[in-house]
Amino acid sequence: MTKTSIAGLGDVLLVTIQGELTDHDALRLQEELTTRVADEGTRGVLIDISGLEIVDSFLARTLHDIAGASALLAARTVVVGMRPEVAITLVELGLTLPGLDTALTVSAGMSLLGSTGPR
Amino acid sequence: MTKTSIAGLGDVLLVTIQGELTDHDALRLQEELTTRVADEGTRGVLIDISGLEIVDSFLARTLHDIAGASALLAARTVVVGMRPEVAITLVELGLTLPGLDTALTVSAGMSLLGSTGPR
Repeated sequence: MTKTSIAGLGDVLLVTIQGELTDHDALRLQEELTTRVADEGTRGVLIDISGLEIVDSFLARTLHDIAGASALLAARTVVVGMRPEVAITLVELGLTLPGLDTALTVSAGMSLLGSTGPR
Repeated sequence: MTKTSIAGLGDVLLVTIQGELTDHDALRLQEELTTRVADEGTRGVLIDISGLEIVDSFLARTLHDIAGASALLAARTVVVGMRPEVAITLVELGLTLPGLDTALTVSAGMSLLGSTGPR
């Protein structure tokens, strides 16, 4: 799975999605991420989707599910870097991602998670 | 009911679920726990589900109800030790347990309850 990377920054996992994901890639990301949240005692998950020009309904749902599972494991999820055209498309599809926090940039997302980065 | 144990730690009740519960077991746990919360002036309830590989919708609902009843009796409930695969399944079932606090470990759960353990 080379289209995504997961990096640990203190007690935050920074997930970067570099290219469009197949449904299978999205599910694998969800599994890997949820396992790491539980194993590493992660407090926050930051998902950078600035590399994506399209977020389809499956990926939107997977992001929502990642946030839900992380919340059950006591971690907060913030999606950052959404392009305006992606936001417009999601709203048109009726996918307003309730329960998912968003921020414009990685640094704003880190602030939202109350983390100052690596420690 | 040998699949669960309830131990008092200061003003916290630590509930350990060691094996899959039938619906009947879950209801009995709810009754016993709620009675003890009222009788003992418990401030926090910590439910350790790390022994469970599956949390079905009935148990998820019961956990939610235990938290609701405890809150009415002025006690906070934290569920700890949820496995990642359990979290993913609950989210897929749409059971995100709103109103239920979670922590990864018993010790993180105790911190959340503001307790330092037995007194």
